Amino acid sequence: MSFPVLKNDRLLRAARGEEVDKIPVWVMRQAGRYLPEFRELRSRHDFFTICQTPELAAEITLQPIQRFDLDAAIIFSDILVIPQALGMVVEMRPGVGPVLPEPLETPTDLQRLQHPVDVNATLGYVFKAITLTRHRLEGKVPLIGFSGAPWTLMGYMIEGGGTKTMSKAKAWLYQYPEASKELLQLLTDVTVDYLVGQVQAGAQLLQLFESNADFLGPALFYQFALPAIAEINQRVKDKCKQLKLEIVPMTIFAKGAHYALEELSKCGYDVVSLDWTLDPEQSRQRVGPNITLQGNLDPCALYAPNVSLEREVKEMVKKFGKKRYIANLGHGIYPDMDPESVRIFIDTIHSF
Amino acid sequence: MSFPVLKNDRLLRAARGEEVDKIPVWVMRQAGRYLPEFRELRSRHDFFTICQTPELAAEITLQPIQRFDLDAAIIFSDILVIPQALGMVVEMRPGVGPVLPEPLETPTDLQRLQHPVDVNATLGYVFKAITLTRHRLEGKVPLIGFSGAPWTLMGYMIEGGGTKTMSKAKAWLYQYPEASKELLQLLTDVTVDYLVGQVQAGAQLLQLFESNADFLGPALFYQFALPAIAEINQRVKDKCKQLKLEIVPMTIFAKGAHYALEELSKCGYDVVSLDWTLDPEQSRQRVGPNITLQGNLDPCALYAPNVSLEREVKEMVKKFGKKRYIANLGHGIYPDMDPESVRIFIDTIHSF
Repeated sequence: MSFPVLKNDRLLRAARGEEVDKIPVWVMRQAGRYLPEFRELRSRHDFFTICQTPELAAEITLQPIQRFDLDAAIIFSDILVIPQALGMVVEMRPGVGPVLPEPLETPTDLQRLQHPVDVNATLGYVFKAITLTRHRLEGKVPLIGFSGAPWTLMGYMIEGGGTKTMSKAKAWLYQYPEASKELLQLLTDVTVDYLVGQVQAGAQLLQLFESNADFLGPALFYQFALPAIAEINQRVKDKCKQLKLEIVPMTIFAKGAHYALEELSKCGYDVVSLDWTLDPEQSRQRVGPNITLQGNLDPCALYAPNVSLEREVKEMVKKFGKKRYIANLGHGIYPDMDPESVRIFIDTIHSF
Repeated sequence: MSFPVLKNDRLLRAARGEEVDKIPVWVMRQAGRYLPEFRELRSRHDFFTICQTPELAAEITLQPIQRFDLDAAIIFSDILVIPQALGMVVEMRPGVGPVLPEPLETPTDLQRLQHPVDVNATLGYVFKAITLTRHRLEGKVPLIGFSGAPWTLMGYMIEGGGTKTMSKAKAWLYQYPEASKELLQLLTDVTVDYLVGQVQAGAQLLQLFESNADFLGPALFYQFALPAIAEINQRVKDKCKQLKLEIVPMTIFAKGAHYALEELSKCGYDVVSLDWTLDPEQSRQRVGPNITLQGNLDPCALYAPNVSLEREVKEMVKKFGKKRYIANLGHGIYPDMDPESVRIFIDTIHSF
């Protein structure tokens, strides 16, 4: 596939450990409810209709790029498209979030999952959205693809939505370790195909979201979550090589896995994304010099008055340094945040 | 006040760093919804009515003691009795949890708080419940008193209940740092009086619950939460000394404050309670030999089959060792857990 020439490669250079003129910056959930233009479009379309309609997904992906001096776009989609591809119903309920009305209850429910998954048939709409968006970007900035990581997806599939404790999904890990591994392997297989398909469609960096790592302690994380994370990086890169696709950099974001930073940095990912509870300098010491770090401003710092926000950003950059660093928040931006604070965040990063 | 002689002082000995014959063990939220006898009593009484009725609070506090071989009782109450004492309405809604229908919105709302608080007038029912329970315990095990820590209380008072992000309360820290400190100081003052009153009433160890530390990163925690935590330990002990009360051991549980373990261990607390994301051996190295550690089995391990649960408990104890250690879960027990698993947890601990 042929695409417009990339004019701003800061993000990719930083991910590969090359010199950059300025620190690259993007924002998790950067296309979303804090933007009035998103809310306007969203008021006319169902959430998953937007995900499934390449024209709409592309339009939303481009909204923050048109507004801000960002160094990357991230395709508008949702991590729960994989459970959907496996035949599960996922609804996005206003004020509640995602709901899976028929969650997996016991290992026999694994039989309900429709697999193996033909990702082109079930998730082709994401690939189309990526290709269309990359053309529309006209090489302005690179396009990031993403997927949820297996443990996080398993959590939603068993809990049926968000939860305070993830206790049902964790009960599976303790009660049905073998069935849990079967489910995680199945999700790993789909995720590998899904991410390779994204590269094929034009994604220039891939981020894996292990958003629910904070529910696991070290033992469960090492036993169940980490092997899948490591396997995905390895297999995606192997398969891209085999298909003579570009080997794109890969980022792992395991929110709350403070205990596993060293192990995560040994999984082969090019970038390790940090949540806001991790100190940049300590994290650098823990992962060594050969990994790019991403993050990690507390999203709530965007509520601060401009002067304080600028000070927070400057302190963060001072700690991370300019080398092997991609600036971002420590988690997704919240819907009630002021787009002007996002602008200040981005411009302060670029002022270094 | 005169109480029955204490027959089992394992918990207090471990908290003070003395030798123990067996590892002391108790369970956070040990009197609660996982017990059928609790659910029976609760079906007849409103949650806060139980807290406010010393006879009922004592009965519920004793339920797990009658059932299990525990080394401590913890008074049945709730951390939100302090916001109530400050004049805020707190409701316990089934399936939702605590709701404060009129949360603090801006710093001017601080004027709504009724303070200074006369803890004997507003929280005397807790003191009565403690005195009654300590008599009823007949010296079988020591009685633990507790309070929520200021940042955690502030969170509920601003959010009006549980939340996924604590974004309103964190917005206060960023937008109104001075008013936030004023509120935290006010909560610190009440908490000190409240905890001293509990010692006066018969509490033999005090635990401070900073349950919402996980929403803060290092900078906010050090600036806002930690100073209050340190001040409470110092002032409670000073005041007990001044009033010629027993100086009881104090425990700090700051859930999610993995980044602050060293700093927490320097606050003067006798016991630092760990959540399940922290490795026991690394934690010991970080805090040094002069602190008792408490914790930290993943509550969800209680869903495991008996054999696996026993194995998990044994691995935990092997890591913590018998010295300066109080066994517990890494967070409160969940309502759907099997009391028989609690028994196995306790008995396995005592088998060392």
